[in-house]
Amino acid sequence: MKVYGDSQSGNCYKVQLTCALLDIKHQWQPINILKGENSTPSFLNKSKSGKIPLLELDDGRCLIESNAIINYLAHGSSLLPTDPFLLAQVQQWQFFEQYSHEPYIAVARFIEKYLGLPDNRRKEYLSKQDGGYKALTVMERQLESTQYLIGDHLSTADISLFAYTHVANEGGFDLTSFPAINAWLARVKQQDGFISMENVN
Amino acid sequence: MKVYGDSQSGNCYKVQLTCALLDIKHQWQPINILKGENSTPSFLNKSKSGKIPLLELDDGRCLIESNAIINYLAHGSSLLPTDPFLLAQVQQWQFFEQYSHEPYIAVARFIEKYLGLPDNRRKEYLSKQDGGYKALTVMERQLESTQYLIGDHLSTADISLFAYTHVANEGGFDLTSFPAINAWLARVKQQDGFISMENVN
Repeated sequence: MKVYGDSQSGNCYKVQLTCALLDIKHQWQPINILKGENSTPSFLNKSKSGKIPLLELDDGRCLIESNAIINYLAHGSSLLPTDPFLLAQVQQWQFFEQYSHEPYIAVARFIEKYLGLPDNRRKEYLSKQDGGYKALTVMERQLESTQYLIGDHLSTADISLFAYTHVANEGGFDLTSFPAINAWLARVKQQDGFISMENVN
Repeated sequence: MKVYGDSQSGNCYKVQLTCALLDIKHQWQPINILKGENSTPSFLNKSKSGKIPLLELDDGRCLIESNAIINYLAHGSSLLPTDPFLLAQVQQWQFFEQYSHEPYIAVARFIEKYLGLPDNRRKEYLSKQDGGYKALTVMERQLESTQYLIGDHLSTADISLFAYTHVANEGGFDLTSFPAINAWLARVKQQDGFISMENVN
């Protein structure tokens, strides 16, 4: 299988981290969105909306949306519960990530890290702070009572939330007042097979 | 089981439509977010972020995030494929809905229908048009080649996208130039057990 993505993108890192933890062999194809490499006709043929990451199976079938991809890759593994309620809880956190976390923390990081915090995006950047801290507070409350987002086992929900939370400082978020999140970040980093964002392709 | 929600909310309607299609008995508890009924201590005890819809099982376990709830309710039914790739495609569309569709179409509708399009939200309202039409175009392309979002079978992906697409006009979106979407909307409405948004509790 082939994974198309940008190694600085948290959404793409989710796929790389899942592959590393589950020892899934894949070919990595770098895509530079700032250079428009996700808007070429051949790429749009695989990913209709031009989104990365993109998973291409050996038979040509393609999948987009990071959280859908990692749940697919983790199917049948310890990272995805089979109990319907626990499985729903995994998805609950992943939808939370896409709606209430990523649009604040990842977008602020994009403006600061990718674009260099230009003046014409500063107001938008600052507007992301409240929502980002609100999302972190929801996570902190959960992680005060459980080791991982779903009880005592690492799941794809943790991978989904780890991706941008562990680099939230790059979007201007200060994690020092979130001890449960920090302990959880350390716990994820200690997993067998863990690979850091700096060390992916 | 008990479902807490606002019957004018598309996210809540997803749950009601799923229950109707699968004939799942439940108790409906109206929550008025404009009156802050989702911010009371007792509600926040069930839904940490105050989000609706909220599903409360008879044993007290709670679940939020509309798409996670409907996938839980549809587990084992014809609305949710068991094949891992098809299941991932369902989630792909649902994450698309939460990230690339709802924040434009549902938010524009909220500003127009709930808030009466006040002057201080008009700029934000207008800024939602491009993203909303882009999402509709992605759907149109898919529905030009398949009867439903995932091939020829209705799934929870259709319920997730139907909820706000069928009332997109209430957010200022004109669907007349999307024939495949219109045919699909009609197809969903013809399902056994279908209940319209106006006829839910």
